Amino acid sequence: MIGEIETLLAERARTVMPSAIREICKLCEQPGMRSLAGGWPDPQTFPVERIKAIIADLLDSEANRCLQYTTSEGLGGLRQWLAGWLKENDGLVCSPDELLITHGSAQGMELAAKIFLEPGDVAFVGLPTYFGGTGACKTFGAKLVGVRVDPRDGLDGDELEKKVESEQRAGRRPKLVYVIPDFDNPTGSCMPVESRKRLVEIAEKYNLIIVEDSPYRDLYFDQPPPPPIKSFDRQGRVIFLRSFSKIFCPGFRLGLALGNAKIIRRMVIARQFEDCCTAAFSQYVLELFCRRGYLEEQIRLNREFYRRKRDLLLDLLERHFPASVKWNRPGGGFFIWVELPKDKDAEELLQKSLARQVAFVTGAPFFVDGSGRNTLRLSYAQASENELRQATVELGAVLKDI
Amino acid sequence: MIGEIETLLAERARTVMPSAIREICKLCEQPGMRSLAGGWPDPQTFPVERIKAIIADLLDSEANRCLQYTTSEGLGGLRQWLAGWLKENDGLVCSPDELLITHGSAQGMELAAKIFLEPGDVAFVGLPTYFGGTGACKTFGAKLVGVRVDPRDGLDGDELEKKVESEQRAGRRPKLVYVIPDFDNPTGSCMPVESRKRLVEIAEKYNLIIVEDSPYRDLYFDQPPPPPIKSFDRQGRVIFLRSFSKIFCPGFRLGLALGNAKIIRRMVIARQFEDCCTAAFSQYVLELFCRRGYLEEQIRLNREFYRRKRDLLLDLLERHFPASVKWNRPGGGFFIWVELPKDKDAEELLQKSLARQVAFVTGAPFFVDGSGRNTLRLSYAQASENELRQATVELGAVLKDI
Repeated sequence: MIGEIETLLAERARTVMPSAIREICKLCEQPGMRSLAGGWPDPQTFPVERIKAIIADLLDSEANRCLQYTTSEGLGGLRQWLAGWLKENDGLVCSPDELLITHGSAQGMELAAKIFLEPGDVAFVGLPTYFGGTGACKTFGAKLVGVRVDPRDGLDGDELEKKVESEQRAGRRPKLVYVIPDFDNPTGSCMPVESRKRLVEIAEKYNLIIVEDSPYRDLYFDQPPPPPIKSFDRQGRVIFLRSFSKIFCPGFRLGLALGNAKIIRRMVIARQFEDCCTAAFSQYVLELFCRRGYLEEQIRLNREFYRRKRDLLLDLLERHFPASVKWNRPGGGFFIWVELPKDKDAEELLQKSLARQVAFVTGAPFFVDGSGRNTLRLSYAQASENELRQATVELGAVLKDI
Repeated sequence: MIGEIETLLAERARTVMPSAIREICKLCEQPGMRSLAGGWPDPQTFPVERIKAIIADLLDSEANRCLQYTTSEGLGGLRQWLAGWLKENDGLVCSPDELLITHGSAQGMELAAKIFLEPGDVAFVGLPTYFGGTGACKTFGAKLVGVRVDPRDGLDGDELEKKVESEQRAGRRPKLVYVIPDFDNPTGSCMPVESRKRLVEIAEKYNLIIVEDSPYRDLYFDQPPPPPIKSFDRQGRVIFLRSFSKIFCPGFRLGLALGNAKIIRRMVIARQFEDCCTAAFSQYVLELFCRRGYLEEQIRLNREFYRRKRDLLLDLLERHFPASVKWNRPGGGFFIWVELPKDKDAEELLQKSLARQVAFVTGAPFFVDGSGRNTLRLSYAQASENELRQATVELGAVLKDI
């Protein structure tokens, strides 16, 4: 009888495809699999003892509040602290009214898409870009238009302008630009300051919203990234998303959206009918972690930790990959972006690698125009040093074979 | 400049109004306020010591997993346990593939609306009903059609059939029925078994989805409710939502959706682009709480606890409310539904009550047809016995005054 029921599905439920990462991560749970796939952090970095002490204290003194519902905006105390942190850390001056605590930065993107996008509206995204952002836009019926991401300059401003104009001429409504300026997922690139300013100018010129997704901003290895795009936003067009999954831990599912107070208010109302509020317990744990001064220290430790792993994987690629394969040297974040020769297919590489118990994510799902079949993304985040070594040797062998 | 930016908002961001409960709950945080407003449980019921012990054990033995991301479906072990519980508790036979762990039952409703509803589709809801469900349907552009809720029989089957047919004749597409059969929010009524069967027959006849939202099912005070609507579902049309906020605690933001595996799969894909997964930490805490046999015990305690509070509030209303005011005697759940004389306005009562530091929720927001201005909902869940006494005396005094 499911046949008759299936006719009831909304268009979005037919067209939105499963996340390639979420699906491959299920494979990665198989014992023996060496995974360079997910952007999951290394559990070695988790501040377990500190979390243990914080929770013991919370349950002694604040149980009534931390086990209760809370407001849709998020804890006032946490937002207050984060407003101070954003000022110090990113040079962003804001009030708690401009902040919303979310279940991961993914939810910030979804809420932005929910309040702005309608069928036929146009969202501009990098070629390639993280398909979490893309999927949220598709959910609300937006047309996705890809814009080239330059390894050095990030999202190409000239191409963006041209495409905005051509969409306007075609009678569609350009609304939103989704961008990951700091150690991009998947390309690892970091947008220079001029490109950031240019992006804001374009948004002002064409009346666009920018969603600046920045989960890796603090994880720089060589030098800090330029100021956020949000810092050049004079009109309140930029929604800045942060995640605590990579600088604290993912298990509490915490993210942050910063936007102008009116936009944040609309996102708050939308989330009242989505999941009501972010888990109070999670928020209290983060608040105390921050107030005890642990966040900065954790960020420093993670920076050093992932820098070593990046260096190791770069070194291994140099040693084991054939000369025909190219990759970048990311200045931060979790990913190395790999290009095979034009005639090679990363999907074929993946199937052969999985047979040798090595997993990664192919590049194609990151391209909304269906290109990029010869690309792939390698993550050095979660695999142990030993697994990185083994995986690279295996991949190198398969690469010579396809 | 917000003016120009506001023109970018999607229709849903203009039409979906803030949740009346979420908004009034902010007022309730003012010191001295006696709140009969929110459906927030009483913190006295929270199993703090057990949670403390569980978390200490988890962080000793499972930290790597409980602080990490997890699958979008939810923890396999938790879903396995819950499948057994649903069988024993509710007589529902299901496999873990038919279960999805959500951030509260609200998210189950939102995901159901997301995968089924498009602009112009019709969702049928009780007159009155919980506006969390209504808001999720509105978000996706559905037309909401109200169906009378009888205090004894629940959602009126005859009226539902008539309205489905009239919507069909008008060229619209009836798709979904949202219903709270067990100790309804806000009316407190409990649907008898015949009405449940009838509802499934209607859904089969007209090809409809039923979302059965059941956060209060286990909190019965006099006798257990009839089997869930889901238990009469032979074709996989019913999505059954449970919440752990009222039988465990709300702070971990946990809910459960049970539906046929294909529908659950669509909801899983939709949630991959919404918030990726439910916080792993929250899920591990609940799993251990369940595996240690605490859930059943907690439910028994909560049942006794809220039965006493219901009895107290009923007794207080009898003593302090004028004879012109009517209310029901709920057999479970958190709410008493109050009807003032037809010419009275509950909003006026609320304003005068707030001035005396007593809060409640007016009935009107629960009616999608704009009726119900003379109704209100009183919750005995969160207020202390003292606060219940004080609030009833104040309300009684104001009632004689309007």
